[in-house]
Amino acid sequence: MEGKEEDVRLGANKFPERQPIGTAAQTHEEKDYREPPPAPLFEPSELTSWSFYRAGIAEFIATFLFLYITILTVMGVKRSDSMCKSVGIQGIAWAFGGMIFALVYCTAGISGGHINPAVTFGLFLARKLSLTRALFYMIMQCLGAICGAGVVKGFMPTIYQVQGGGANEVAHGYTKGDGLGAEIVGTFVLVYTVFSATDAKRSARDSHVPILAPLPIGFAVFLVHLATIPITGTGINPARSLGAAIIYNRSAAWNDHWIFWVGPFIGAGLAAIYHQVVIRAIPFKSK
Amino acid sequence: MEGKEEDVRLGANKFPERQPIGTAAQTHEEKDYREPPPAPLFEPSELTSWSFYRAGIAEFIATFLFLYITILTVMGVKRSDSMCKSVGIQGIAWAFGGMIFALVYCTAGISGGHINPAVTFGLFLARKLSLTRALFYMIMQCLGAICGAGVVKGFMPTIYQVQGGGANEVAHGYTKGDGLGAEIVGTFVLVYTVFSATDAKRSARDSHVPILAPLPIGFAVFLVHLATIPITGTGINPARSLGAAIIYNRSAAWNDHWIFWVGPFIGAGLAAIYHQVVIRAIPFKSK
Amino acid sequence: MEGKEEDVRLGANKFPERQPIGTAAQTHEEKDYREPPPAPLFEPSELTSWSFYRAGIAEFIATFLFLYITILTVMGVKRSDSMCKSVGIQGIAWAFGGMIFALVYCTAGISGGHINPAVTFGLFLARKLSLTRALFYMIMQCLGAICGAGVVKGFMPTIYQVQGGGANEVAHGYTKGDGLGAEIVGTFVLVYTVFSATDAKRSARDSHVPILAPLPIGFAVFLVHLATIPITGTGINPARSLGAAIIYNRSAAWNDHWIFWVGPFIGAGLAAIYHQVVIRAIPFKSK
Amino acid sequence: MEGKEEDVRLGANKFPERQPIGTAAQTHEEKDYREPPPAPLFEPSELTSWSFYRAGIAEFIATFLFLYITILTVMGVKRSDSMCKSVGIQGIAWAFGGMIFALVYCTAGISGGHINPAVTFGLFLARKLSLTRALFYMIMQCLGAICGAGVVKGFMPTIYQVQGGGANEVAHGYTKGDGLGAEIVGTFVLVYTVFSATDAKRSARDSHVPILAPLPIGFAVFLVHLATIPITGTGINPARSLGAAIIYNRSAAWNDHWIFWVGPFIGAGLAAIYHQVVIRAIPFKSK
Repeated sequence: MEGKEEDVRLGANKFPERQPIGTAAQTHEEKDYREPPPAPLFEPSELTSWSFYRAGIAEFIATFLFLYITILTVMGVKRSDSMCKSVGIQGIAWAFGGMIFALVYCTAGISGGHINPAVTFGLFLARKLSLTRALFYMIMQCLGAICGAGVVKGFMPTIYQVQGGGANEVAHGYTKGDGLGAEIVGTFVLVYTVFSATDAKRSARDSHVPILAPLPIGFAVFLVHLATIPITGTGINPARSLGAAIIYNRSAAWNDHWIFWVGPFIGAGLAAIYHQVVIRAIPFKSK
Repeated sequence: MEGKEEDVRLGANKFPERQPIGTAAQTHEEKDYREPPPAPLFEPSELTSWSFYRAGIAEFIATFLFLYITILTVMGVKRSDSMCKSVGIQGIAWAFGGMIFALVYCTAGISGGHINPAVTFGLFLARKLSLTRALFYMIMQCLGAICGAGVVKGFMPTIYQVQGGGANEVAHGYTKGDGLGAEIVGTFVLVYTVFSATDAKRSARDSHVPILAPLPIGFAVFLVHLATIPITGTGINPARSLGAAIIYNRSAAWNDHWIFWVGPFIGAGLAAIYHQVVIRAIPFKSK
Repeated sequence: MEGKEEDVRLGANKFPERQPIGTAAQTHEEKDYREPPPAPLFEPSELTSWSFYRAGIAEFIATFLFLYITILTVMGVKRSDSMCKSVGIQGIAWAFGGMIFALVYCTAGISGGHINPAVTFGLFLARKLSLTRALFYMIMQCLGAICGAGVVKGFMPTIYQVQGGGANEVAHGYTKGDGLGAEIVGTFVLVYTVFSATDAKRSARDSHVPILAPLPIGFAVFLVHLATIPITGTGINPARSLGAAIIYNRSAAWNDHWIFWVGPFIGAGLAAIYHQVVIRAIPFKSK
Repeated sequence: MEGKEEDVRLGANKFPERQPIGTAAQTHEEKDYREPPPAPLFEPSELTSWSFYRAGIAEFIATFLFLYITILTVMGVKRSDSMCKSVGIQGIAWAFGGMIFALVYCTAGISGGHINPAVTFGLFLARKLSLTRALFYMIMQCLGAICGAGVVKGFMPTIYQVQGGGANEVAHGYTKGDGLGAEIVGTFVLVYTVFSATDAKRSARDSHVPILAPLPIGFAVFLVHLATIPITGTGINPARSLGAAIIYNRSAAWNDHWIFWVGPFIGAGLAAIYHQVVIRAIPFKSK
């Protein structure tokens, strides 16, 4: 049960067994753990592997289903003559968070279950996947999102346009800066959870941290929606924002659209830095 | 920890360790994994096994309880003079999804926990069970659903008929094509989750994908209800639609009834094809 | 991985590997599994064990906290001038189900986490605990429930009496027979889930059925509340009904009170019979 | 599988195998389990360890995100012209409970995942961490909470002050004694769950109690909010109350502020005593 604490600059930790709940988990994990080498930027031979394309297809289908279910839920709430006769705003938050839970569970073993360019970007910054793969994933995610929103519009073309099409905009009463801030912190919550869950999974059998990674990731999405639907409708996923914006295609959605790319990418970047530098202390690790 | 990637046509994958979160899980799983032989269409000796009949009884009881709780919840919401004084539409979605979670948990070890002819159909297409067993399950599911809806009508005969009896119909403002599409994609979400969860379970101890299969399956049902209750009342389960329709027995329910068999079976078939061909690449696997 | 199917009368099962999802779990489980001997009715030496009294205290505290949180939630909803400004009926259902989840999780290792005389009764019928222990648990549960409801009344004496004190009654529009039926089936759902979860726990590491037993048990309570709050306010727990009735102490609550003992005990008995006879086939097992 | 029951004064327990569901878990756990020695009050060398400061940073960031998401959700509900057009009071309860779930999951391996001075206080009483560490955690939690509430005020300075800033106060119709009692019992529920979950985690692989500790802890927070939002707005976390009070800074919040320190600390102390003395019987254990 004795863990060998990671060797960081400030001083070796000799107190694993006296640390509070769960603290020891991190140190135990590290026992047999060796940081995998960073993924190369370009890996041409990857392009000849079927599992590479299969992963892209899985991202496409997952993002398609994500937009389909969530935007359909948003439309069902908006077209209802009274919120009380619909699943309500809370139901919308459940739709987004729940779909991420179910889809990450389903696709984690195939593509890693990103379903979100901001997540892909964060993991790329941490060198968990190649640039080739990151770009391929993002393209497939955006295509899936466009198709998912398109099917919803196909069901109800008039209402879709009247009710805003589930597109993200900064609400009245908030500045663009507020919207950008909300996207940054919201995406930080999501990507930080992804990093934490990924770590925990590495040696789930010896870890005290439970092995139900997709659940906290889905909850993170749910929670950010509870908090920021009133501000931006909650993006924290550029593919989701792009898909709805392209199918809706009104200037209101396009004017604010940059916020839903810049915000999530900054948030994901900060989460990657926080996890890799502060929590994992990778730059300070002795070889 | 090195996984041997499945040998598919397009090219061997040499990059398991560089793939993003969870990707490696699939490959690790395959290490000691051998696809079980497809179930035969007819297996006469199965009919002399007690576990065969026990499984049918478990499907009957589970579908009975499923309809009882869910239709009773629907009736409670509809008879309330204000949605706000009931559990609301979101409560209905929780009832359907939550019951599938609890019942799959309870019956997974006895019958596989289908509780839905569309799930049985999808698993039959993937040759996970014999035709004999598939038909037996479907009959027991339909009988259980009829009894469950019948008990609810017994509690409140007048209100049951006045309030629609929980039967599935395409709502005003949508075409039959919309309803069929909603059923197809909705059932795809459910059966795809079932296939993913089944796979993950195969070697849960070595898998990075969490071992809480009934939870994402239940959530999938919950999420599809959030999205499509306004369109069709959400079937994605022909036994549920049949049970409510038989006990309600009005032409409004019968006119659209074919949608709730054709849609789910198409959706389940597509999910089976997607999982077996694209994700598992079974047709392309070298022996 | 080969399981040896239980030897039942109707015929040996030779098909474990061809059965659908999760079916194999049951058979694998049985490999190293031996049904524990039934608990004796009276076990005098048990009375000299500290763990016996500790278990009783844990049941008392758990039922106290259960009533405190749930009745306080009910009162908060009822005293609100609009359901929309409270957590609503759905929030009440979450309070009941969520508390059972958390409390079963906390006390499972100490007392078994019954928190409900009907659960204790069902497990006693299956001879999982002695009569001495069953009676001791029931008394402690009832005492805890009375104290929990009493504290809530202490916070708001007037409102408690005006708003019904969370006591169970058959609602207008339903017969006493409806109420009894709702209690029977509702308790069946709960106790059947308890039995299934208990079984699954027996060899969690080799089981394909997930090892999160308290979660489906909590969900079962939540779901029964969604369905039957409009009929009886949902008892399915005689201690909960008794505690609220004693503190409320009006004839309306006492007139129907027998329903909330007879119904749950019948439901628990049926669940015990279903699980032990149909699912486990214990009476037919060859020694 | 035979467990050796802990040796307590009242008498040795000879009945582990006959105890009801899950009871055996506790005894099995103890097999290879040795109570860790209590943490020293002061451990100067701890102060030279990077993991000590990393844990403090993790507590700061977690409490920052906790206040940010939860207070933003509260503000979104309060500024809505109708509760039905917001996520509602139930959504607020989900925000608090869900964030604790996600954040405990993320930080358990780094700092133990307290995010709450009352939890830190309870674990300190049980001598799970040094006084130095406990004080350091509390300071970082309070700083994080102030920053989190501050960012929310930055988004909506006027509304924040008009709508009460998410600060805890005893509601009209309740005495200060009611508020104090609600905080004591509420914190007892939370800290008791934390202790139970911690125990269960100690030997998760051999335990029958599921290994998803952050989920019941998050649910405990959710449930206490369902019950006591109408009374005090629910504190049970002095850092959360302090952060909102400092940023709101009106006398209404400061007048009751002592309740949200005294109540949680008493509740945490009672939970520590209950768990250590009654459940674990540590003072009576033979060496």
